[in-house]
Amino acid sequence: MKYCNECGAPVSLRIPEGDNLPRYVCARCNTIHYLNPKLVVGCVAEWESRILLCRRAIEPRYGLWTLPAGFMENGESTVQAALRETLEEACARVRIDDLFSLVNVPYIGQVHLFYRGRLLDTNFAAGAESLETALFAEAEIPWQDIAFRSVALCLKDYFADRSAGRFAFHEDDLLPEAGF
Amino acid sequence: MKYCNECGAPVSLRIPEGDNLPRYVCARCNTIHYLNPKLVVGCVAEWESRILLCRRAIEPRYGLWTLPAGFMENGESTVQAALRETLEEACARVRIDDLFSLVNVPYIGQVHLFYRGRLLDTNFAAGAESLETALFAEAEIPWQDIAFRSVALCLKDYFADRSAGRFAFHEDDLLPEAGF
Repeated sequence: MKYCNECGAPVSLRIPEGDNLPRYVCARCNTIHYLNPKLVVGCVAEWESRILLCRRAIEPRYGLWTLPAGFMENGESTVQAALRETLEEACARVRIDDLFSLVNVPYIGQVHLFYRGRLLDTNFAAGAESLETALFAEAEIPWQDIAFRSVALCLKDYFADRSAGRFAFHEDDLLPEAGF
Repeated sequence: MKYCNECGAPVSLRIPEGDNLPRYVCARCNTIHYLNPKLVVGCVAEWESRILLCRRAIEPRYGLWTLPAGFMENGESTVQAALRETLEEACARVRIDDLFSLVNVPYIGQVHLFYRGRLLDTNFAAGAESLETALFAEAEIPWQDIAFRSVALCLKDYFADRSAGRFAFHEDDLLPEAGF
């Protein structure tokens, strides 16, 4: 951030009075610009024990597989975000069940939420940001080609819970050492 | 948003190519400015069956009671945000347990998360953004003076679960009719 959204003057990074963190503050109109974490929301959509994955047609992680998920928009709920992203990335209609996984990715300012879901039919297809979409049984998951660590973590928790016959809510924090 | 953060030129609201929502786009450098929901994170901190509340010393809802909670910062996890907000607003040290409540407030672009927590001691006090802090038994909660609907909802779910002897995760969406 270099310029003020409100007046167009340059901003400088300093700790505002009464605050304890550096913020971008406008030198002219004194607007304080707060930068906050973004929510990424998606779902583990199941059809006859298989899971819907999308192969990414965009960077980062072009060509790798992921759960349908993306940045939550203003004006929608977390469930609406999961439904929208699943429709956009996999042209798939799902029923969303409980929240399953929350993964903090603090070093890139993101919180990832994954719901459990069920495909309503198999009329899915690659959306604009996907190269292809497919259903994978647990033994078929391309673990070496999963795009994001949060997705791999969520899938591992999902299969462990499913084997145990009981889905619980999972919360994890990722550390930066291994990239995304 | 009126000016570009990157180059200071005016922005205009339009749907970028390949997108389906209007965004603020810079007329000079073409930067697309995405606005996303913010996370507010806090906790229901208990001490001998009583709950810690803070009376707000800031707007909105000056003078009303709330759970310790606030905007999550970049670089921290959701649990770290709950710990920090509880320390800042109530000078209180807590142990954070499971995530208890997620409340979508889509009409103001917010998602509120409340954890269950336990006070480690009773050395709490009003932080800079609080007029006072106090412990309330269920029967003492000032329901008419609770600052936010998400907080009232969370507290009602909390007491219902506690009475039932079992805490579950709760998810709710607020509609705009009644303000915050």
